[in-house]
Amino acid sequence: MSPKITTELLKQLRQVMKNPRYVQEPVQAYIVPSGDAHQSEYIAPCDCRRAFISGFDGSAGTAIVTEQHAAMWTDGRYFLQAAHQMDSNWTLMKMGLKDTPTQEDWLVSVLPEGSKVGVDPFIIPADQWKRMSKALRSAGHDLVPVKENLINTIWTDCPQRPCKPLITLDLSYTGISWRDKIVALRSKMAERKVMWFVVTALDEVAWLFNLRGSDVEYNPVFFAYAVIGMNTIRLFIDGDRMMDPAVREHLQLDSTLEPEFKIQVMPYGSILSELQAVGAGLSPKEKVWLSDKASYALTEAIPKAYRYLTPYTPICIAKAVKNAAETEGMRRAHIKDAVALCELFNWLEKEVPKGTITEIVAADKAEEFRSQQKDFVELSFATISSTGPNGAIIHYKPVPETNRTLSVNEIYLLDSGAQYKDGTTDVTRTMHFGTPSAYEKECFTYVLKGHIAVSAAIFPNGTKGHLLDSFARSALWDCGLDYLHGTGHGVGSFLNVHEGPCGISYKTFADEPLEAGMIVSDEPGYYEDGSFGIRIENVVLVIPAETKYNFKNRGSLTFEPLTLVPIQTKMIDVNLLTEKELNWVNEYHQRCREVVGAELERQGRHEALRWLLRETEPLARVQ
Amino acid sequence: MSPKITTELLKQLRQVMKNPRYVQEPVQAYIVPSGDAHQSEYIAPCDCRRAFISGFDGSAGTAIVTEQHAAMWTDGRYFLQAAHQMDSNWTLMKMGLKDTPTQEDWLVSVLPEGSKVGVDPFIIPADQWKRMSKALRSAGHDLVPVKENLINTIWTDCPQRPCKPLITLDLSYTGISWRDKIVALRSKMAERKVMWFVVTALDEVAWLFNLRGSDVEYNPVFFAYAVIGMNTIRLFIDGDRMMDPAVREHLQLDSTLEPEFKIQVMPYGSILSELQAVGAGLSPKEKVWLSDKASYALTEAIPKAYRYLTPYTPICIAKAVKNAAETEGMRRAHIKDAVALCELFNWLEKEVPKGTITEIVAADKAEEFRSQQKDFVELSFATISSTGPNGAIIHYKPVPETNRTLSVNEIYLLDSGAQYKDGTTDVTRTMHFGTPSAYEKECFTYVLKGHIAVSAAIFPNGTKGHLLDSFARSALWDCGLDYLHGTGHGVGSFLNVHEGPCGISYKTFADEPLEAGMIVSDEPGYYEDGSFGIRIENVVLVIPAETKYNFKNRGSLTFEPLTLVPIQTKMIDVNLLTEKELNWVNEYHQRCREVVGAELERQGRHEALRWLLRETEPLARVQ
Repeated sequence: MSPKITTELLKQLRQVMKNPRYVQEPVQAYIVPSGDAHQSEYIAPCDCRRAFISGFDGSAGTAIVTEQHAAMWTDGRYFLQAAHQMDSNWTLMKMGLKDTPTQEDWLVSVLPEGSKVGVDPFIIPADQWKRMSKALRSAGHDLVPVKENLINTIWTDCPQRPCKPLITLDLSYTGISWRDKIVALRSKMAERKVMWFVVTALDEVAWLFNLRGSDVEYNPVFFAYAVIGMNTIRLFIDGDRMMDPAVREHLQLDSTLEPEFKIQVMPYGSILSELQAVGAGLSPKEKVWLSDKASYALTEAIPKAYRYLTPYTPICIAKAVKNAAETEGMRRAHIKDAVALCELFNWLEKEVPKGTITEIVAADKAEEFRSQQKDFVELSFATISSTGPNGAIIHYKPVPETNRTLSVNEIYLLDSGAQYKDGTTDVTRTMHFGTPSAYEKECFTYVLKGHIAVSAAIFPNGTKGHLLDSFARSALWDCGLDYLHGTGHGVGSFLNVHEGPCGISYKTFADEPLEAGMIVSDEPGYYEDGSFGIRIENVVLVIPAETKYNFKNRGSLTFEPLTLVPIQTKMIDVNLLTEKELNWVNEYHQRCREVVGAELERQGRHEALRWLLRETEPLARVQ
Repeated sequence: MSPKITTELLKQLRQVMKNPRYVQEPVQAYIVPSGDAHQSEYIAPCDCRRAFISGFDGSAGTAIVTEQHAAMWTDGRYFLQAAHQMDSNWTLMKMGLKDTPTQEDWLVSVLPEGSKVGVDPFIIPADQWKRMSKALRSAGHDLVPVKENLINTIWTDCPQRPCKPLITLDLSYTGISWRDKIVALRSKMAERKVMWFVVTALDEVAWLFNLRGSDVEYNPVFFAYAVIGMNTIRLFIDGDRMMDPAVREHLQLDSTLEPEFKIQVMPYGSILSELQAVGAGLSPKEKVWLSDKASYALTEAIPKAYRYLTPYTPICIAKAVKNAAETEGMRRAHIKDAVALCELFNWLEKEVPKGTITEIVAADKAEEFRSQQKDFVELSFATISSTGPNGAIIHYKPVPETNRTLSVNEIYLLDSGAQYKDGTTDVTRTMHFGTPSAYEKECFTYVLKGHIAVSAAIFPNGTKGHLLDSFARSALWDCGLDYLHGTGHGVGSFLNVHEGPCGISYKTFADEPLEAGMIVSDEPGYYEDGSFGIRIENVVLVIPAETKYNFKNRGSLTFEPLTLVPIQTKMIDVNLLTEKELNWVNEYHQRCREVVGAELERQGRHEALRWLLRETEPLARVQ
């Protein structure tokens, strides 16, 4: 990786920061956040403005350019990458380190008195605007919205915003029609006494209308907003996608409908003016519901007294609790995904000793096997295919410069998943194709114990996922080991592989309680810098549990693994497992055999079936 | 308990709410919070204004009186008690129940348009003022400070504010002189670039000056404030306490000192005007540090731009980490406390079968045995002495109306502690003086497993206590049982039995990380309404742990029990314990034998020693 030369670009940016064509008054600093206008985690190429101006293309980072300085804030996952990708114009601000200033503090320290700090009001979330604006104001500066994105003014070869065809999902996939979702949403709105709800997150628009797209890689979403009133539905979307007869039929655009279910289709770019019109026409007590992470621009369109902001929208919460059709779809998707991985691991076992399989080859092969499965759409994220020391880089993605050859001497970590029309998968397995060392087995077994502790945990209804995080660490902690990431995230149903509002992490307190039907990942790990990485990840479904006393009828919950891929027994030090843990492994493998075995048989994949049967032999304690 | 008749009092209060002698403009509602001007958990009789106006004297509750209504917000611990103590003038607002409105929402629903809501600005914490004021303002009302406390104007027989003599603590107890504490505080102030620090919490004043008092029952504190500048020390305190030669000597009031260590003693009541003078004299960039829980009155004395507010003060954090002298003192206090409890339980064992021992008698006897120990000062909280169904009332305190006789048929729960000049204790033991049922043993054993899971937990340096809370619940959860309180709280060193900033609870996210030297309680429980209560509580010290891999030199922590009182083995179902848990119990009891046994021997308490030896016989698994 050589750094991007940004001298000329920064010069141009500093010019437009003073150009009255773009700014009412010159701005002394300009903030370039990571996100798009929907505060998405994954963004389209046209929204990679921070990568364009700096060269640093990690998934998280904020650039700030002043007349004299250019600085980049990013977290520990990206220190190395950012340092490699940026030239000497840039200062790397390592977030999480004690001496690293916050963006606000840094701005205050470098700006001349009474400065203006510009930002695109569509990109910055309202809650972040509020915090930053307050800090700057108290130091005598102003945060100002700059209507035209200044990066776009200098990005001459900026790609077009994608506008790909839509996929309609029928009831067999979604379980609930979009009409019924609208009805449920309106009843939540009535409960909170709000008249309007603004859908700004892309996966929420997709879920609400039972539509999918492919505007953003790995995420089956499309660029759109929606504004739901008690009697109106407005969908803001561009292109000729609404000309597709299947979409028209699905949305009943040409049918005679009760007016409250008639969808008005409007241009994507008209959201702000339409919302401003809504804002201007409100009578007292008519509130408008928005996520507190919606953009500053859209939030400001509604006068403050009329805003009803919540961290999680009712769609986000409803979307997280999968119905029977979605759960069944997720099960099917995970069985197909397991078939692909049995094929892959069986193939790797034969090929790795030949010394020709690189991380990229393995990742491609995984995609090939997945793509053979029914209803495969695309991958659900960039495959983390990493061997040896690369495994210790938690968000590693193999590129030619780092591409390592798999061998019988190193641990191989594969974290991968796919989008199928019936569900989204995300699975990590850590394998050794030779003989693991005692230390590697020891670490692997602690990680496995943590994985089981979460997966088999029983807890009362209403428990938040973050309360389970330490269960995943306890066995590692006992020996003085730990991992510096959360234990799990919510997973969408043929939607984003990361979704709120639930998860399992020590980092948050604001997650919503787990309830039956929610789906999260369970993925503890251990990373030895420069040597190896271990992670064991299943996607698990929250289900009711049976307990002796049932929490005085409050109800009990536990998890059911949806992922059914063997956990390499070669890596397990059986003597470190308790009886209960040993039984868990054997029962899990028995279930892989039965369920995935039947599918391998049905698909005539006999060699992979033999591999599965061998890998799922019951473990016994060494006497 | 018969309710307090409050008709006349409420009439008087409603009159003063309109009386221009006390309020600039009439207030349509008046808030009476629980606390005192120092936001103390335990308060002096003169500060029990909410109990005076309503009759409800639980430790938590907020009363709001409007022209038409009187309402009381309290939590689940006190629903029953509040309902019994209040007459029909009052509406009980059960906090935590779904349909209970917040104070703000309720006010908005009952107040006429454009109302004024009054509150004593010295009683309401600044953070609460901010929240409430914002909510009221957005509904068109105003929160206004009422200088004179309106309850005081109608409370004709209000007790005097206590002003008891002070105790000076020398270095052998405190480990650090007050001068060195001031130096350390000033260095923290310099780090944060603040010029002034305002000490508002009573235990922080006491700790800073190595003084103790007895103005508040169970809490060895005294009414005072302090304002520390970089070159000045001001102590605001009333009475002739500063005439005591020992105190004068301790504070070096009559010595020739460097000016920056010269303490200026000022009247308690002059804090506001002095702070206002400080506020008026600040030059730009001179900040004043306050807790964000300091009173609104004191916070407002400093212009907003000059305030530096944090949830935990540097004193709170320094105080939590006990030094060697304090730790040794806490050890000694806990040994003496264990001697008293061995005497008590030995005595109860003989007396309970006679049927004459009530909860109050047992509590008094516990105090008697404690008071025989060296440096005993007072109890550290009201003894929870509860048998049978009373044990299920978590914050029970026996009174004649509820006083139950201990018997060989019911579980007895004793949660008690004392203030010794060398340390503070807090211990809960659950005993059966007959034959416990299998179910009682089962529940006790799950609670014990939870207690051990926390006590024996190993975790990396920097871990927050709330991450350990679920360890205490796991065994209970597995069977569908739980308890609805946190697992532990910080404990002061001859100071408040509850102190911040650390603890072990699912309820907070804002606790400070645990570090070696911090002291917390470990007290899981199980409560069967109408039948029994079980709790096992030790006070534990955070100590460095030895682990195989030591978290890449981040360091490992665990707990050492300071409490050394036998855990009744009769209540344990040994077959439910793992080998590790069984060993923990046996090692704990071995330590009780050695340490407390030696002290019982030294004190010539031979019968109690025999009891200890019998109760600490090693457990073995039934084959």
